[in-house]
Amino acid sequence: MLLNFDKCLIMKNLKKISVVGMGLLGASVTLSIKRELSSTKIVGYSHRDSTRRKAEDYGVADEIVDSLAAAVEDMDVVILATPIQTFESYFEDMGQYLKPGCIVTDVGSTKSLPHQWAAKHLPKGVHYVGSHPIAGSEKRGLEYARDDLLTGANCIVTKVRGTHRPSVELLEKFWTKLGCSVEVMSPTRHDKIFGRVSHLPHIAAAALVNASSFADLKFSGKGFMDTTRVASGPANVWTDILMTNPQTCVDGIDALIERLKEFRKAVKAGDEKKVDKLLAAAGDKRAKMIQHKIEQKELF
Amino acid sequence: MLLNFDKCLIMKNLKKISVVGMGLLGASVTLSIKRELSSTKIVGYSHRDSTRRKAEDYGVADEIVDSLAAAVEDMDVVILATPIQTFESYFEDMGQYLKPGCIVTDVGSTKSLPHQWAAKHLPKGVHYVGSHPIAGSEKRGLEYARDDLLTGANCIVTKVRGTHRPSVELLEKFWTKLGCSVEVMSPTRHDKIFGRVSHLPHIAAAALVNASSFADLKFSGKGFMDTTRVASGPANVWTDILMTNPQTCVDGIDALIERLKEFRKAVKAGDEKKVDKLLAAAGDKRAKMIQHKIEQKELF
Repeated sequence: MLLNFDKCLIMKNLKKISVVGMGLLGASVTLSIKRELSSTKIVGYSHRDSTRRKAEDYGVADEIVDSLAAAVEDMDVVILATPIQTFESYFEDMGQYLKPGCIVTDVGSTKSLPHQWAAKHLPKGVHYVGSHPIAGSEKRGLEYARDDLLTGANCIVTKVRGTHRPSVELLEKFWTKLGCSVEVMSPTRHDKIFGRVSHLPHIAAAALVNASSFADLKFSGKGFMDTTRVASGPANVWTDILMTNPQTCVDGIDALIERLKEFRKAVKAGDEKKVDKLLAAAGDKRAKMIQHKIEQKELF
Repeated sequence: MLLNFDKCLIMKNLKKISVVGMGLLGASVTLSIKRELSSTKIVGYSHRDSTRRKAEDYGVADEIVDSLAAAVEDMDVVILATPIQTFESYFEDMGQYLKPGCIVTDVGSTKSLPHQWAAKHLPKGVHYVGSHPIAGSEKRGLEYARDDLLTGANCIVTKVRGTHRPSVELLEKFWTKLGCSVEVMSPTRHDKIFGRVSHLPHIAAAALVNASSFADLKFSGKGFMDTTRVASGPANVWTDILMTNPQTCVDGIDALIERLKEFRKAVKAGDEKKVDKLLAAAGDKRAKMIQHKIEQKELF
C-alpha cells in the first residue's frame, strides 16, 4: 500500500521516465506507468526501426524516440529492458547523456553483472539500482504487452554497499505503485536464489528432454509435460540469463548431480528405505513450500 | 473400436473376473467392468479388513471376498492391483487355486519383474500377460475410484516370447472395452520407455527439490512449481516403481547427468553458441513432441 505522501514523492521525482527496449516486458512497463502515473512523461526507445514503428502504432509510450541520446538525456529514471548482455555497452554509451541524479535500472533476470557493469561505466552522480520484476508471458513482443502484467508480480530490487539509498527507496515505491510486491536484497543473493529456483530447473528440464529420444517422448504423459514445460521457453532469452549467472548455474548443476547420485546409489543398492526417504523429503519440502505460498496468498 | 464379434468373445471368455487390491486403480477397474461388461461377475479382494468393508459399502464389485483363495479360484481373469513388490508372493500364493486357462494380469507401472516372477511361480496352463493402464489421480484410495478413470487412457499390454497369444488378444479387447487405447510391447521396451518419460522425470523433480533450501523455495515461481509437481506424488507408490525398474533408472540418471554436464561445460566456458544450441535442441524436440500429441489427439 502506498500512502498519499509516497505518491506525491513519486510524482515529484519521476516527471520523465524512459524505457530502452520495447519487447513484451519493456512495453508492459511503459503501459503500466501510463496507467498508474498519468502525470509522468514516458519515453520509449528501441534500436530497431520496425519496433519503434510498432511502438508508435500501439501507442505504448507518450513519445518514441530514435536515438539512445534522446532516450536518456534529461530523464529522472532510465529503465533498460533489453537482453542482459547488452547492458554493459548501453551503460558505456548512455553515460555522457545522463543528467546528474538520474536513476538507472533494468528489468533483467540476473543482477550481479549489471551491478558490476554499472559501477564500471556509469558516471558518478548517476544512481544505478537493479530491478527484477518477475513477470512474463509465453508470448513475446510488444504486441502482447499489457498494462496489468506487473499486477501482483514479485519484484526484487537489488543494491550493494554504496548504492544510493534514496534511489532504492524511490524504486521500491515505483514498482509498488505499478502493482508489484517488492523485496530488496543484494544482487549476489538474488542470483543465488534465482539460480536455484529458476535457472537450474530450466537447465534440468532441457537436459531431461535432451536425454530422451523422440521415440520415447511419444509415450510421455502429463508428468513429463509439466516437468519439462519451461524447456519450451525462448532459447535466446534463457541463454542470456544463463550466460550472466554462470557460477551459480555451475554450482546448481553440481548440487543437482549430487542429489541425482544419491538416488542412483540407493536405487542401485536396492535400498528401499533410502529411496523412500529421498522421495518423502522432496514431497514434504514441496508441501511446506506450497503451504507457505498459500499463506502468503501467492497461490490461488 | 470393438466389433460385435469381439464383444461376444469377451462375454464368452470373461464370465468371472477378480481384482486383488482395492485402491483407487483397482476399484476403478471393477467399476469400469461393472459399467461395460454387465454380464461379467466381478469379485474384489483386499487383505485389509477395513478396505473390504469400504469396498462393500461403496459397492465397487458384485462380491467382496475375504481370502485370496476365494478371490482367484474359478476366475477367468485375475487382475493384481497391489504394490508391484507384492506380486511375487501373490503369484506364489495364488498358483494352487487358479484354474487351468486362467489369465493373470496386473496394473503395475513396471513390467519386467512381474513377467519374471510370473514365469517363476505361476503354474503351467495359467497365462500371465502384463498390463499398465496409464491412469491415476493425485487422490488415493477406493473412495475416489471412478468408472471413467480408464476412459481415453493409454494401456500398454506386455508379452514375452512364449506368452499365450490368445490371452494377449483377449486382454487387448478387454482394456479397449474399458475405454483404453492399447499398445502391445515387450516388458523390456515398456520399462525403458517409461523409465525415461516417467521414472526419470520423477527422480529429477525430487532431486531438484532436494537441491534447494526452503529459504530459496519461498521465491519459486510457476516454473519451479511445474518442474517439480510430480515430486508431490505418494513416496511409497514411487519407491515401489523405482525399486522394480532399477537398471533403467540408473541408466536414465547417468544419461541425465551427461546432459547436465554438457550444460555445465558450456556455461562454465562462456560458450554462448553451445548453450543456445542445447536449449534450442530441447525446445525443438519438445515442440515436435507436442505436435505429435496434437496429431494423435492426445492433447486438447
